[in-house]
Amino acid sequence: MKDMTIKNVNALYHGFVDIRIRDGLIDEIGQSLSDVTGDTEVIDGSGRLLFPGFVDAHAHMDKSLLGLGWNRNEVGPSLQEKIDNERRMRVERNIDFHQQTTRVAERYINYGTTHIRSFVDIDTDIGLSAFEGLAKTREDLRDDVMIQIVAFPQSGMLARPGTVELMESALQNGADLVGGLDPSTIDRDPAAHLNEIFRMAEKYDVDVDIHLHEPGELGAFSVELIAERTRALGWQGRVTISHAFCLGGIDEAHLQRLIDLLLENDIAIMSHGPSGTGTIPPVERLYKAGVRMCTGNDGIRDAWGPLNMPDMLLRAFILAYRNNFRRDDQIEMVLDIVTNASARMMKVDAYGLEVGKSADLVLIDGETHVEAVIERPPRWMVIKGGKIVVDNR
Amino acid sequence: MKDMTIKNVNALYHGFVDIRIRDGLIDEIGQSLSDVTGDTEVIDGSGRLLFPGFVDAHAHMDKSLLGLGWNRNEVGPSLQEKIDNERRMRVERNIDFHQQTTRVAERYINYGTTHIRSFVDIDTDIGLSAFEGLAKTREDLRDDVMIQIVAFPQSGMLARPGTVELMESALQNGADLVGGLDPSTIDRDPAAHLNEIFRMAEKYDVDVDIHLHEPGELGAFSVELIAERTRALGWQGRVTISHAFCLGGIDEAHLQRLIDLLLENDIAIMSHGPSGTGTIPPVERLYKAGVRMCTGNDGIRDAWGPLNMPDMLLRAFILAYRNNFRRDDQIEMVLDIVTNASARMMKVDAYGLEVGKSADLVLIDGETHVEAVIERPPRWMVIKGGKIVVDNR
Repeated sequence: MKDMTIKNVNALYHGFVDIRIRDGLIDEIGQSLSDVTGDTEVIDGSGRLLFPGFVDAHAHMDKSLLGLGWNRNEVGPSLQEKIDNERRMRVERNIDFHQQTTRVAERYINYGTTHIRSFVDIDTDIGLSAFEGLAKTREDLRDDVMIQIVAFPQSGMLARPGTVELMESALQNGADLVGGLDPSTIDRDPAAHLNEIFRMAEKYDVDVDIHLHEPGELGAFSVELIAERTRALGWQGRVTISHAFCLGGIDEAHLQRLIDLLLENDIAIMSHGPSGTGTIPPVERLYKAGVRMCTGNDGIRDAWGPLNMPDMLLRAFILAYRNNFRRDDQIEMVLDIVTNASARMMKVDAYGLEVGKSADLVLIDGETHVEAVIERPPRWMVIKGGKIVVDNR
Repeated sequence: MKDMTIKNVNALYHGFVDIRIRDGLIDEIGQSLSDVTGDTEVIDGSGRLLFPGFVDAHAHMDKSLLGLGWNRNEVGPSLQEKIDNERRMRVERNIDFHQQTTRVAERYINYGTTHIRSFVDIDTDIGLSAFEGLAKTREDLRDDVMIQIVAFPQSGMLARPGTVELMESALQNGADLVGGLDPSTIDRDPAAHLNEIFRMAEKYDVDVDIHLHEPGELGAFSVELIAERTRALGWQGRVTISHAFCLGGIDEAHLQRLIDLLLENDIAIMSHGPSGTGTIPPVERLYKAGVRMCTGNDGIRDAWGPLNMPDMLLRAFILAYRNNFRRDDQIEMVLDIVTNASARMMKVDAYGLEVGKSADLVLIDGETHVEAVIERPPRWMVIKGGKIVVDNR
């Protein structure tokens, strides 16, 4: 891997600069950097936009049906129908999770994604096969994209005996986090579900990421239960609540109490700007209150539906659209969420457009960084750890 | 203009066929059409997707700031702030409406749009200049895209004396429709506003298209007033209500009464799947009840915000996303709305993938028509009236 100097780029938060990369790290950021001699590649950015690598903080790479021919989706509307339909389809179609997660990862990389937190389904039908497939992909592609894996009981945990043992096995074999799911509406026993999740978090010293689709006051109750356990275990800064639709469906006073709880326990919120007309978390309010926000693409072309794509600029657009962010400062907030904020949530210390950080960079044609969210041009170049992984020169 | 035969395309509602075009019209659709001699161009579709031309039934081409450098948007949240901000900016920036509408039209054409209904703002500051600019663009590009023009009192009508006279002048000089706007919340006199709109409709024998952002019961009252005037004037089939957010914000019994009113008076509803978390019309329910539905991109990169693009496949995606349409049959409904349904609403008799209709066609790479809504590839070829207007062979 050669060192390189990228000349004349419009870098997020820096303006027009040159960037020097040495040993895979950002070595210098400045205007009109002098040429260095030796084995250094010089890239003329021609004033293109430069972003830090895009971060997907909530993916389901194992679910994707990409590359298997168009899946005609006829699934019913309820969450349980979608879960059952997917479990059935996986058996019928004999899904190869290593192949599928590789396909998804390659498209993610082409869109400039350098870091992904992906859930993997663990249940008593497929066992650990989704985890093992994604773990192999994570290893194969470790120089091209960083993947965090969450052991996730999509089909229920307490309600499906044997699942906890499988999750523990995943955590013993390289899963990075433990994931929970709708403690009331799926497992029907919120306290017991969360006790089990936090028991595993402590035992394996891992962070927690909980899917919470539960609406209104029921979901708000789950947020409180999660916050109580976060405090009890001293797990502040180590818990994310994903979706959290309930934060858009409760009254003002209750919302403020929950925001205080989230802040006290440094719990992050993931919102992907969901489809439909249900309630959604008030992203700008949470962000401005100091709640750590992150986002992701959720499932890509899977049994749940075809709507999502592995492009974090499209996700930024969707998050802006769903929240009616029309001002540039609001869309810049979304750009922070698809880059730095999501990376901080994932605790990627080496991340960022700063000297000493990993050279994870995306170059794109365009006039302003906000315009890139609207126009979403093909990525001109993607660099991961100083290595060019996408090159459309 | 040569006649042509397009071989081997996957045509919407037809499957894999050949299409023969003669004198700008679709002359034959069938499998393995025999070759004809003479001056005929043969195009190998290679199994690509073929759609009828995309239809934008609700645009604001005169508002766009495309090509003028990125506009940093700092506008406040209220409708009145957006209206005032735009009127001020137009004077400050000395907008050339012919140039701007041409820029927007060219991008529309590149995305395969063959028919557009565009509003033009008419007010006592800019007078008829937006109308005149778009009318010239309509004439310049008449072989490439069909444009309908709605005379639209964006800044208020009764509340801004002199506006009605300007609107009548536009209608005398080639505006195709008369447009209204929030009869209660802008003009503060719903009966008088609508009486004036329908008076002009009758006087100039034109159809009506009314922006209705008014929420809940207030908007529902406006729907009733519009339906009463539609019936009184015998204007059934000639009235569209655009946005109609209120249809998502009233109780079930009232919604059913309004649906009955819409059906009795054959009033169409335009929904573009708006940004934000407000109520939206229940598109699938209205469509299945038989209400004529249409959609459009609204404003493109203008003083109201940057979020929209002139791509009806992106609009189809947004409409699907906002309505949580995940099944293929639902996304196929959206494809009907961005093509045939919107064209019927605009009364484009020559439209459609049928023998005898104008050869307005879009060819796109892809496996299924629904996939094109998700992947939105560049348009491979666009044909308008038998003329190739976009050629990416």
